[in-house]
Amino acid sequence: MLSLKHLNIKSFNENLAYINKNCLEYAIDDISALSQVEIQTEASKIYAFLQVVEDDSLVSATELALNDEAFDNLGEPEKTEVSISLAAPAPSRMALKRKIAGNILSPQDYKFIIKDIINRRYSDIDIASFIVAGGAFISANEVLGLTDALVNNDKINWSFENIVADHHCLGGVPGNKTDIIVAAIVGAYGLAMPKTVARATTSCASVADTMGVLCNINLTQDHFLELVENNRVAIADYEPLNIADAVKSIANVERHLGLTQQEFLLTSILAIKISAGVTHLLIDIPVGEKSRVKNTYEAIRLRKLAEYAGDHLGVHVETVITDGREPIGNGIGAVLEARDVVQVLKNKPNAPQDLLEKSLFLAGRILEFDPKLRGGQGYNTAAEILRSGQALEKLNDIIKAQGKKEAPVLGSFTRDVLAPQSGEVLEIDNAQINRIGIWAGVRQYPGTGIDLFKKIGDIVDAGEPLYRIYACTSDDLALAESVIENSTGYIIK
Amino acid sequence: MLSLKHLNIKSFNENLAYINKNCLEYAIDDISALSQVEIQTEASKIYAFLQVVEDDSLVSATELALNDEAFDNLGEPEKTEVSISLAAPAPSRMALKRKIAGNILSPQDYKFIIKDIINRRYSDIDIASFIVAGGAFISANEVLGLTDALVNNDKINWSFENIVADHHCLGGVPGNKTDIIVAAIVGAYGLAMPKTVARATTSCASVADTMGVLCNINLTQDHFLELVENNRVAIADYEPLNIADAVKSIANVERHLGLTQQEFLLTSILAIKISAGVTHLLIDIPVGEKSRVKNTYEAIRLRKLAEYAGDHLGVHVETVITDGREPIGNGIGAVLEARDVVQVLKNKPNAPQDLLEKSLFLAGRILEFDPKLRGGQGYNTAAEILRSGQALEKLNDIIKAQGKKEAPVLGSFTRDVLAPQSGEVLEIDNAQINRIGIWAGVRQYPGTGIDLFKKIGDIVDAGEPLYRIYACTSDDLALAESVIENSTGYIIK
Repeated sequence: MLSLKHLNIKSFNENLAYINKNCLEYAIDDISALSQVEIQTEASKIYAFLQVVEDDSLVSATELALNDEAFDNLGEPEKTEVSISLAAPAPSRMALKRKIAGNILSPQDYKFIIKDIINRRYSDIDIASFIVAGGAFISANEVLGLTDALVNNDKINWSFENIVADHHCLGGVPGNKTDIIVAAIVGAYGLAMPKTVARATTSCASVADTMGVLCNINLTQDHFLELVENNRVAIADYEPLNIADAVKSIANVERHLGLTQQEFLLTSILAIKISAGVTHLLIDIPVGEKSRVKNTYEAIRLRKLAEYAGDHLGVHVETVITDGREPIGNGIGAVLEARDVVQVLKNKPNAPQDLLEKSLFLAGRILEFDPKLRGGQGYNTAAEILRSGQALEKLNDIIKAQGKKEAPVLGSFTRDVLAPQSGEVLEIDNAQINRIGIWAGVRQYPGTGIDLFKKIGDIVDAGEPLYRIYACTSDDLALAESVIENSTGYIIK
Repeated sequence: MLSLKHLNIKSFNENLAYINKNCLEYAIDDISALSQVEIQTEASKIYAFLQVVEDDSLVSATELALNDEAFDNLGEPEKTEVSISLAAPAPSRMALKRKIAGNILSPQDYKFIIKDIINRRYSDIDIASFIVAGGAFISANEVLGLTDALVNNDKINWSFENIVADHHCLGGVPGNKTDIIVAAIVGAYGLAMPKTVARATTSCASVADTMGVLCNINLTQDHFLELVENNRVAIADYEPLNIADAVKSIANVERHLGLTQQEFLLTSILAIKISAGVTHLLIDIPVGEKSRVKNTYEAIRLRKLAEYAGDHLGVHVETVITDGREPIGNGIGAVLEARDVVQVLKNKPNAPQDLLEKSLFLAGRILEFDPKLRGGQGYNTAAEILRSGQALEKLNDIIKAQGKKEAPVLGSFTRDVLAPQSGEVLEIDNAQINRIGIWAGVRQYPGTGIDLFKKIGDIVDAGEPLYRIYACTSDDLALAESVIENSTGYIIK
């Protein structure tokens, strides 16, 4: 038996066990590299991956140390007696191999795979293999099976509501922060909208980041329930709600790979929304050559998949296919996007019109989930709620209820990127704008961002600024500038 | 600037950097999970993946700690001033994404990918994605491009030889230790054979394990050259030779996944052999329903691929398709396989005949690489060398030159697995036998293994032992027994 020790190391979702290379309980050989071990106390058992330590002061030959994740999972105090042994293969390992070989898996296979992910039987390497293999080929029935497995029979119960609405964008379009405006309008109208948001995977900033600079979005499930009951709307990061737990593990690996597979994205969105107890879901599929969904055929394919899975899993799914050729609004990055949102809600004349129009369009579609509203009245109703200031008031209520935050200031290292020639802006490359934002530090610092001065169709003079980058350190600004050397992201002709 | 510290942790090939969560130089946010950072001193630069530490005694806010791999890579003493910043994307990242999306990559793309793997710009997650995507679809030209990139212009030069021969088995057949017998015969004949071997990926034991119990196989390139010059033959683990470095990183991830993709296996074998300076290569492709290559069509496809790549990369490749329906020889596991090899070389009457015959067949084919030998004379020449004891003498020379080892004893925890019914042995499931061996501990302890008493075609009585398992701990024996509960691996009718 070894004595348990806690090494205060956070390894982003993987259970790691550290043993001394002269460990008295477990023979180390290079051949055991990366094997999974089973760690057992009288009361508890976890699985972990090995790291080997030479320094006796970190871990001695009679100790077994665990990182933060593994120590929390095991839930035993230091000095507890633990035993260690090679773990038998995870129950779903053969199913994973069959998926990697290109086969179709059964709903039962997906249940086992997701259970193994939740039980940390999968390393990040295994999860990456699952994502890449599934992204290469997955059938419609498998999308259904995977979504169902991700939901894991665990739904938030809004028994006090008939219609529980939400909307989600397939993403890839920078600055697309309609969600907060839509939520404010829908809440002011009176429909229940328990809005779940997620950190960005491949985009530079997400709704979670923007809402996160305005107020706390880290809510428990009970608090989320209470806020929606009182206020009609709350906006919460799905992770602390403890729903669809495997989605988080998959998204972490996708974020690392900088990769989004359409079907996996769809299953993740559906699983989060279904677990959040949504009855009516609007999915926005922006289409653009430099967006995530490249053309209308692909959008329609995804629409049918979403409808098929929704119908079988008991959630009403509607989709809208929208223009994803350029960023929505002017600001990209949490602080700048929050500015755009507030300008729209305050009916400011300089508010970005594309953000305003798209928000009203989406909110109108959601309001029409209400059987009492006459067909075609959604848009006008939404516009009236916005114009009257009720939506702004609702956002202020939401912020106050969740816990208002002081918004951070914009980064003080700036660079104006100038038009190299005169002409009309023909294209803006969403992927490149995302890249510039990421390297400017948007994911580290909410005050980082890009403020667009020109959009598609605008006429520019050579030397006129196209956009301004805000960074929080000079190194980050230099990184963003090195990305721009390759391309500004603008095509002017 | 932060102060460099070494945390004595071995993480199996990944560079890890540990920073305090209040690090004064780098803002931590969950969003930066798994991002790659660039770590720079005045003289040196490496890339690493982050882990976040809360305990100031491990890493303080003014320190940056590195694991063994990263510390060695950076090559600077503790307390050196280091700076840390988010790393720009690896040069081949877009190529990796295109492969994941199912596209064909150019030879140049593969050069960049392999360079990034060698420079540790790829995490194990990235490597897993590369393997799974490449395994799902890779064209013949890509096999060529990938092999060439793996060789990386770095070949051992055997200028004193015209013919440098080696042979390699595609694997999947337990106990298939012809390699050592063949090397002894070829060396006794006088052809140069610098034999490179590798640790097992998905099999339970490899030639490296078997040879490793007889003598040291951990040779430097200079020592390897010297031994072959003096002795005609040396058998060395390819890893310490510092050739085809990226193969090791790929094999580590394959071992973890328990996965072998045929094309990746072929590129790895070719890359190691070409880097080892081989001019004539015999590839053995065993075919069997429960083997790695399931049927003759698949074997012929792989043969053509190997020939195509060999022709373009300047190595003469011949292939033989052999019977892979059951294990070769009786012993599985390093000590038992070494026993079989020595029995054959000593011309013992109880030596496994299948191992003897296959070794003579392969050795004969290799001897015929010698233009002086008349066509068809290879087998008889090999048989005569074996019969006369010259091959045994050669193996003893090799062992002595490389550094003889005392072979470990067999594990003392044994279990005889009995025939559940009388009849004829119709099938032996190689994959199941491998699995039993792995869970009995073959990869941890060379004294672990399986000794087969019955082979295909043998008549057994109910209750007669089919094979004996040797394990080194009672826990391991119990694990192996749990695998047998599912299937003994034998079909008797």
